[in-house]
Amino acid sequence: MRLTPKNELEYRFRKLQAEMAKDSLDAVIMVQNADLFYFTGTVQTGNLYVPLSGDPIYLVRRDYLRARMESGLATVIPFSSPKELPAQVAAHGHPEPKRIGLELDVLPVAIYQRFQALYPNAQFFDASPAIRRVRAVKTHYEIHILQDAGNMADKVYRRAAEVIREGMSELELAAELERFSRLQGHQGYTRMRAFNGELSMGQVLAGADAAAPACTNTPLGGMGLTPAFGHGASYNRIGTNEPIVVDMGSCFDGYLVDQTRVFSIGKLSDRLRKGYEDMLKVQGLMMELAEERPSWGRIYDECRQLAVKLGYGDHFMGGPGSQVPFIGHGVGIEIDEHPFIAKGFREETLEPGMVFAFEPKVVFPGEGAVGIENTFYLTESGLKRLTFSSEELVCL
Amino acid sequence: MRLTPKNELEYRFRKLQAEMAKDSLDAVIMVQNADLFYFTGTVQTGNLYVPLSGDPIYLVRRDYLRARMESGLATVIPFSSPKELPAQVAAHGHPEPKRIGLELDVLPVAIYQRFQALYPNAQFFDASPAIRRVRAVKTHYEIHILQDAGNMADKVYRRAAEVIREGMSELELAAELERFSRLQGHQGYTRMRAFNGELSMGQVLAGADAAAPACTNTPLGGMGLTPAFGHGASYNRIGTNEPIVVDMGSCFDGYLVDQTRVFSIGKLSDRLRKGYEDMLKVQGLMMELAEERPSWGRIYDECRQLAVKLGYGDHFMGGPGSQVPFIGHGVGIEIDEHPFIAKGFREETLEPGMVFAFEPKVVFPGEGAVGIENTFYLTESGLKRLTFSSEELVCL
Repeated sequence: MRLTPKNELEYRFRKLQAEMAKDSLDAVIMVQNADLFYFTGTVQTGNLYVPLSGDPIYLVRRDYLRARMESGLATVIPFSSPKELPAQVAAHGHPEPKRIGLELDVLPVAIYQRFQALYPNAQFFDASPAIRRVRAVKTHYEIHILQDAGNMADKVYRRAAEVIREGMSELELAAELERFSRLQGHQGYTRMRAFNGELSMGQVLAGADAAAPACTNTPLGGMGLTPAFGHGASYNRIGTNEPIVVDMGSCFDGYLVDQTRVFSIGKLSDRLRKGYEDMLKVQGLMMELAEERPSWGRIYDECRQLAVKLGYGDHFMGGPGSQVPFIGHGVGIEIDEHPFIAKGFREETLEPGMVFAFEPKVVFPGEGAVGIENTFYLTESGLKRLTFSSEELVCL
Repeated sequence: MRLTPKNELEYRFRKLQAEMAKDSLDAVIMVQNADLFYFTGTVQTGNLYVPLSGDPIYLVRRDYLRARMESGLATVIPFSSPKELPAQVAAHGHPEPKRIGLELDVLPVAIYQRFQALYPNAQFFDASPAIRRVRAVKTHYEIHILQDAGNMADKVYRRAAEVIREGMSELELAAELERFSRLQGHQGYTRMRAFNGELSMGQVLAGADAAAPACTNTPLGGMGLTPAFGHGASYNRIGTNEPIVVDMGSCFDGYLVDQTRVFSIGKLSDRLRKGYEDMLKVQGLMMELAEERPSWGRIYDECRQLAVKLGYGDHFMGGPGSQVPFIGHGVGIEIDEHPFIAKGFREETLEPGMVFAFEPKVVFPGEGAVGIENTFYLTESGLKRLTFSSEELVCL
């Protein structure tokens, strides 16, 4: 079992404290699972109190012993109610915080109101931008885990090439790839920060079904099995000469990479094959640009311009009327981390250590979708891939 | 594809309007996926505006056409920004709301603040208690879907009896049961309303590992594969003469039932076998009590008292130090609906139409866990089961 090293945790919360100083925050209190895992090395119900200076306090409701075993933090304290928080903070020598950061993008109002009652004299601010800035730049330790996830992804895509058969349903293929992913160590859950971010382990979509408009901010939706969960694999049967899009997240030891490949049984039409080749060109442009460390928005703008020039104005990143304003997204513990390779974002620049999935795709209603997705990270010496599968169209 | 009938939706929002009248709310605005599915029949990103009188307005950001196809609501309107909400509400002849209900138990603060900015003169209240009261009492339409989910569960448990082998890991068994569930129509995602409610499709735990303390409010946790997601199946190998606890949610057409059965390869110790028999007795007491429509808390108290009398004071619903204060929970679209068969809750009574899982379990550290879980619903003429598997210990 891989436990986050103590010095790794220390490095992370010192970076957060530097961000807190810029925002003049006295303390950040975290409760959300992904943030808890990042800053404590475990995910136990509780409150993580990070003061502007000094060491964090992890107050754990349950399970305290699991937290002691799994977390490298020195100060882990059992507690039974958030009401104990102010007294514990004082007992550890910290002044009463006046400016408190909370995860306002994910924290439910009802829990927020409890913190307001605990600290009636404090002002509250959104700490998530600072937390996300820290988490966006990965450490070597994190890159190693992401490489393991990338190797898992490659195995899953090799498995897809082995099992795809004419007449099997999208669901049958998805179920097999999910089973196989689990056996490689996938935790069976994909974390997404956005509200209502309900994901299964990925999308497996064949032919025209891949062009179904999505209910959320994603280029491909799929029909799903039911209007209760109207995305992802459906009962649609895989045919010949149509694109089979496999877009799976591979999650290992808490970290995920995102990869998309297109398979087909028999030949695709010229339009689809050209679309696929052109998406590789868009990826190539991004790879050139990234080395210059531009703004996230500039990568988006220039790559979209290329796609438009290549003739995909109405088909890039979604079918007509369903296009999404991004081409890539940070990944790590969650599937929607910073950076966003998206419209806007002119101030935020790509920095060494940032990890992101880039997924140029074209969607043709009535026909299907094609495209590529890899996960990349920027090093001091250039862009590197964290997903390793061959980029050829897989004709079976 | 099963679409929620128009009259079903109408019945549901009329019930909500009756609850709103009690709380003097002018409007409820919903955004959370489970509530959207219940009140619209689809799950598309948007805002559902329910006025105190008159018909609801579903403003859909994406995908509008999917919403039109899947929802039985008459008024579905495409919109691109929540800023358009007040104008749309006015355009449909509704007065400006002064007392607005929102889903404060799940709504992130950042989204709440946007609604406050849209309606600066309004007061905001938590509409979730009213929404949950409505959703707790199921219709015949919902019971039929839950019966389908119960049939799915039975198939999954029969599959477990077929595939369990000495030396296979918990993960291998879980992966196979998840694959099999998916093929029966499971959507691959389990909805939980509680903050941080991250679930895979269920727990598969063998021997002493089942007694690992849980990081959340659940009797059995398991070790999981990684501290990043420290619950559920692990790499632990299944041995002989130890309890194998399979606790899976089976979700069909958006509705789930919860069922637990215990398997073993060879014989269990007398203590474990007696524990299992005694949990059946606790279930029997609940079934007698339920017919009297008592408070949720009374069922909890009396069943817990019986468990204590039978000698499980330190082992009931969790190992020593990790016991949880509930024995059952409502199920439906989410796995943590009302009613809560839990400590407290003296005012809330069991009503016909309520559906809940009841899961008396005993945990012996170093040895394992045993218990039973079925999903029930209360009819006018008594309690009925929605999970149909045999209640015998399954000795393989």
